[in-house]
Amino acid sequence: MSEQDAEREEFLRVARRAKEAAAQLAPLPRAAKDAALHAIADALVEAAPRIVKANEGDVERAREAGTSEYMIDRLSLSVARIEAIAAAVRQVATLPDPVGETVRGSVLPNGLELRQIRVPLGVVGIIYEGRPNVTVDAAALCLKSGNVAMLRGSSSAFESNTALVAIMQDALRGTAVPAEAVQLVPGTSRESVKHLMRARGLVDVLIPRGGASLINSVVQESTVPVIETGVGNCAVYVDAAADLDMAVDILVNAKTQRPSVCNAAETVLVHAGIADAFVPRALEALRAKGVTVHGDERVRSYGDDVVPATEDDYRAEYLSLDIAARVVDSLEDAVAHIRAYGSGHTEAIVTTSQPAAKRFVALVDSAAVMVNASTRFTDGEEFGFGAEIGISTQKLHARGPMGLPELTSTKYVVTGDGHTRG
Amino acid sequence: MSEQDAEREEFLRVARRAKEAAAQLAPLPRAAKDAALHAIADALVEAAPRIVKANEGDVERAREAGTSEYMIDRLSLSVARIEAIAAAVRQVATLPDPVGETVRGSVLPNGLELRQIRVPLGVVGIIYEGRPNVTVDAAALCLKSGNVAMLRGSSSAFESNTALVAIMQDALRGTAVPAEAVQLVPGTSRESVKHLMRARGLVDVLIPRGGASLINSVVQESTVPVIETGVGNCAVYVDAAADLDMAVDILVNAKTQRPSVCNAAETVLVHAGIADAFVPRALEALRAKGVTVHGDERVRSYGDDVVPATEDDYRAEYLSLDIAARVVDSLEDAVAHIRAYGSGHTEAIVTTSQPAAKRFVALVDSAAVMVNASTRFTDGEEFGFGAEIGISTQKLHARGPMGLPELTSTKYVVTGDGHTRG
Repeated sequence: MSEQDAEREEFLRVARRAKEAAAQLAPLPRAAKDAALHAIADALVEAAPRIVKANEGDVERAREAGTSEYMIDRLSLSVARIEAIAAAVRQVATLPDPVGETVRGSVLPNGLELRQIRVPLGVVGIIYEGRPNVTVDAAALCLKSGNVAMLRGSSSAFESNTALVAIMQDALRGTAVPAEAVQLVPGTSRESVKHLMRARGLVDVLIPRGGASLINSVVQESTVPVIETGVGNCAVYVDAAADLDMAVDILVNAKTQRPSVCNAAETVLVHAGIADAFVPRALEALRAKGVTVHGDERVRSYGDDVVPATEDDYRAEYLSLDIAARVVDSLEDAVAHIRAYGSGHTEAIVTTSQPAAKRFVALVDSAAVMVNASTRFTDGEEFGFGAEIGISTQKLHARGPMGLPELTSTKYVVTGDGHTRG
Repeated sequence: MSEQDAEREEFLRVARRAKEAAAQLAPLPRAAKDAALHAIADALVEAAPRIVKANEGDVERAREAGTSEYMIDRLSLSVARIEAIAAAVRQVATLPDPVGETVRGSVLPNGLELRQIRVPLGVVGIIYEGRPNVTVDAAALCLKSGNVAMLRGSSSAFESNTALVAIMQDALRGTAVPAEAVQLVPGTSRESVKHLMRARGLVDVLIPRGGASLINSVVQESTVPVIETGVGNCAVYVDAAADLDMAVDILVNAKTQRPSVCNAAETVLVHAGIADAFVPRALEALRAKGVTVHGDERVRSYGDDVVPATEDDYRAEYLSLDIAARVVDSLEDAVAHIRAYGSGHTEAIVTTSQPAAKRFVALVDSAAVMVNASTRFTDGEEFGFGAEIGISTQKLHARGPMGLPELTSTKYVVTGDGHTRG
């Protein structure tokens, strides 16, 4: 057997065990799952020195490969960080269990009792990048919602992830949850990701978490259903009728409070009727925060330091202290810009006009629409979901921040007394 | 330009218009959509002779091609059938509009008002087989839920479908709904289906309605998210503790009341403890209805006319007067059989034991689980949804009969008074 075939065989072996574990995990009550989560948290804290040691190997290799300090920081684990990860697992244990919830129910005219109840999805594949905390966060959210996690992290974090999964599996051995409920996809080759993407029938859904190129390649190649997450080209639209102080605050917060995340603003659109009053103030506030503005001709007329904007700027998810800026003649033109260039994540309007707010909400086709609030609020924790597995930017199954209920499917249960159809 | 390129260009032109129409259609209120549905129903009745004439062309070609009378019947339209189709459109107008419904809402601790509301999916592609009534049914359900329908029926019904869509588009021209809200995919070649499957970004979801091979090819080739529908290898499990009269009634109803549909039973599993009492009665009742039983060795010991069952029989969606039969040693073995061979559509248990019913419901991972009721009840009309676009056998987005709410996504609307994140 070639090495490639062997890797594929090994993948299928792991995936089949995952599917079996999913059948065992699905009917377990909340108490069993919460006990398993606490066992995992305890084990992580106890094994923290071992995890740090494994992580040092990854960090050393990353340094040798010339990785930026920013990425090294994301990759690094310390005892304190591991304790925070364990605390997050305990936090997931406190969240309500979505499984078994009755979504709707009725008695049909013929006396049949109809109930639609939440059930786990089954096996959830997660493909992610450098941060090893995702390994534990994703496993905990999957476990709580009765799903088996098939994890495929970055090869740069392979040693850390291997240690984390081994510790979680060991912890599960003392609980009602099968150890195979948390699985690492074997191997670090590009092929190993493909096995996961082609495992229709064994894996129920794939959630890629990362940059646009990772997500696009999964969408193109996967036969397993995919939930797209996280690409955010978010816009703030400042309407003709807007409180200028509020507009500046929201714009600066949305752009600069944490520029590297998907709900940061990447574009500002300003109604022409307020441009004279707003744009100079906005440029000044952004300048003070070190933001480079890429503006159209009308924006450039307000500041010499505004860089000319290209089509690429309108499309960009900068994740940096850059922003595209444009003056538009109407709310409808702002919406048209967002439809043409946005990623469907989050858009905000700043306005004192109720009709304008209503119209913007109705016309903008994004996962979240903010009225007089920063785009930064699109987040599972902020929305009160307790935790999130990602932010969906697609329309099917889940849209916006995905909490535990979004990790479930449903099942109809129909109870009769010998009902037959006439 | 080659003919192929020209077809692709034409497809993209139509799909782009569909996307524009979706933006216009999405914010329309219920009254505008209902008025458009009535206009369509009126136009269909008025144009019935023209539709029948177009349909005659399709029927003639099908006869020349040696199509079975059963399929010819499915293809054929009469004035009476067109009136029934129009009545179904008026029925859709009476259903509640899911768009705008608040799915959940709360005021967050910081005062932000959070609402999750239903919005249309956008452009819905439907790939289906011979019956031209699907053209109108699907268009009506999409329109009511604020979605544009991109329809791709069988080439055998192309003339009928072309006439139906032209009449619907003409009817829409007098309404607030854009005529492009109902579109036929141009061309009848296999390539034209591929254009639809590759139209990610223009088409939001694809719903294939038809046999397993159609659905599999869509699942394999589509980059547009797919909702699998309709393949039904449904099982009836007769538990050790069962009312035998009820078990015979449910089995015969599930198998024979309409054998050609996806919720008909294709397998019967009998607990060994009741086999002596039940199997002979079941065989007699099935024999009386002309059903061929494909049984394992234990079932064959009860009847000389039982045909030996193969693995293929356990997997088969017969859609005919055939059924696979097996004696199992436990409820768990019945569940294992269903997990191994079933299609995840509908399974039924016949039992007088409450613990057995509870356990079967918990362990069976199908879209619908019936307790003491026929599998035939898995149906949008029967479930009280008014109408259905299909029955999903996948876990993502929708599972089981899909009514109007399943043709929607959601959007979060967050309202503040200048909220920024600290």
